Amino acid sequence: MNFPSKLIENAVEELAKLPGIGRKTALRLVLHLLKAETEDTNLLSSALVRMRTGIRYCKTCHNISDQEVCGICSNPLRDRTILCVVSDMRDVIAIENTSQYKGLYHVLGGVISPLEGIGPSDLHIQSLVERLPSSEVKEIILALSPTMEGDTTAFYLTRKLKDYPARISSIARGVPVGGELEYTDEITLGRSILDRTAYSS
Amino acid sequence: MNFPSKLIENAVEELAKLPGIGRKTALRLVLHLLKAETEDTNLLSSALVRMRTGIRYCKTCHNISDQEVCGICSNPLRDRTILCVVSDMRDVIAIENTSQYKGLYHVLGGVISPLEGIGPSDLHIQSLVERLPSSEVKEIILALSPTMEGDTTAFYLTRKLKDYPARISSIARGVPVGGELEYTDEITLGRSILDRTAYSS
Repeated sequence: MNFPSKLIENAVEELAKLPGIGRKTALRLVLHLLKAETEDTNLLSSALVRMRTGIRYCKTCHNISDQEVCGICSNPLRDRTILCVVSDMRDVIAIENTSQYKGLYHVLGGVISPLEGIGPSDLHIQSLVERLPSSEVKEIILALSPTMEGDTTAFYLTRKLKDYPARISSIARGVPVGGELEYTDEITLGRSILDRTAYSS
Repeated sequence: MNFPSKLIENAVEELAKLPGIGRKTALRLVLHLLKAETEDTNLLSSALVRMRTGIRYCKTCHNISDQEVCGICSNPLRDRTILCVVSDMRDVIAIENTSQYKGLYHVLGGVISPLEGIGPSDLHIQSLVERLPSSEVKEIILALSPTMEGDTTAFYLTRKLKDYPARISSIARGVPVGGELEYTDEITLGRSILDRTAYSS
């Protein structure tokens, strides 16, 4: 693509570095910004810079935070006996949106992935081990994606945490609510039979 | 969605104002920026601001330009007897990429669309009428999208330009190269029969 302006070309190239945005989409975004007020572009770009330079991570759970300790860790209403271990911030947001969980979190910052060169020491696993003894945690829920990497990380964590006296659980795997049995893959369906739950009578 | 940080929330909201980017995609972009170097965010945001504040429009053809007159209008190698009227800058880029056109352009800045409240006076039509008498233009190609709005604009332009002694043509409409007759809609196929071209013998 040949651009009539170096400024446009630059902006398109920077936008196209973002995941899922190609040069055509980037150009569409640039044209949108050109049609909108200059102020909109200023707001966008200052929000990005302030976010990137101002962001902090909670020193307890490593979730993203505006303060030294995040809103969840410092909330006296949260249940301090239960800890949910997740891969990243998006998982915290997803679980918070369910309104089904009132405990604390621990954000690993990824999962073990030898292919991508991510080992246990690249994740916040040591800090998890260190925060437990002085905590009131009685149950640790591993809420990791049901992938090879997620399962490897879960396996590593269960071994790493075996000396700490807490129940370690995993989020349930089974047929998604609203899903059709017919179209569920064999592994998930098999798992849903093995992990069947009794109707409370 | 509840965000653990006002800074993140702000950045997500600003990104989600862009067309085709929802809050989930915006969050993915934000997390990408957080994982990348701070410098990357600075580069992106300064490219956007410089683009938005520094951009100029060619005073002759209204294409986007870094100078007062754009690279195409000022290029002595372009054919000044032929003028292509397009809706916006993207069309110029698309036509330039074909390498099939060596004439000049005129960018209208949109098409007539009563539904969106865009009338002839909102477009660069008057300046088109004004630039013609002092030009060498012998043919005007209307390269507008084959939509209701594009056709309306083309009809308006043919009437507006009827006193100017130039041949007015439209880009060909027909079966796309590589397209299958079977899957071409009736209107396009009908048009392609009416506008059939003779094999040069």
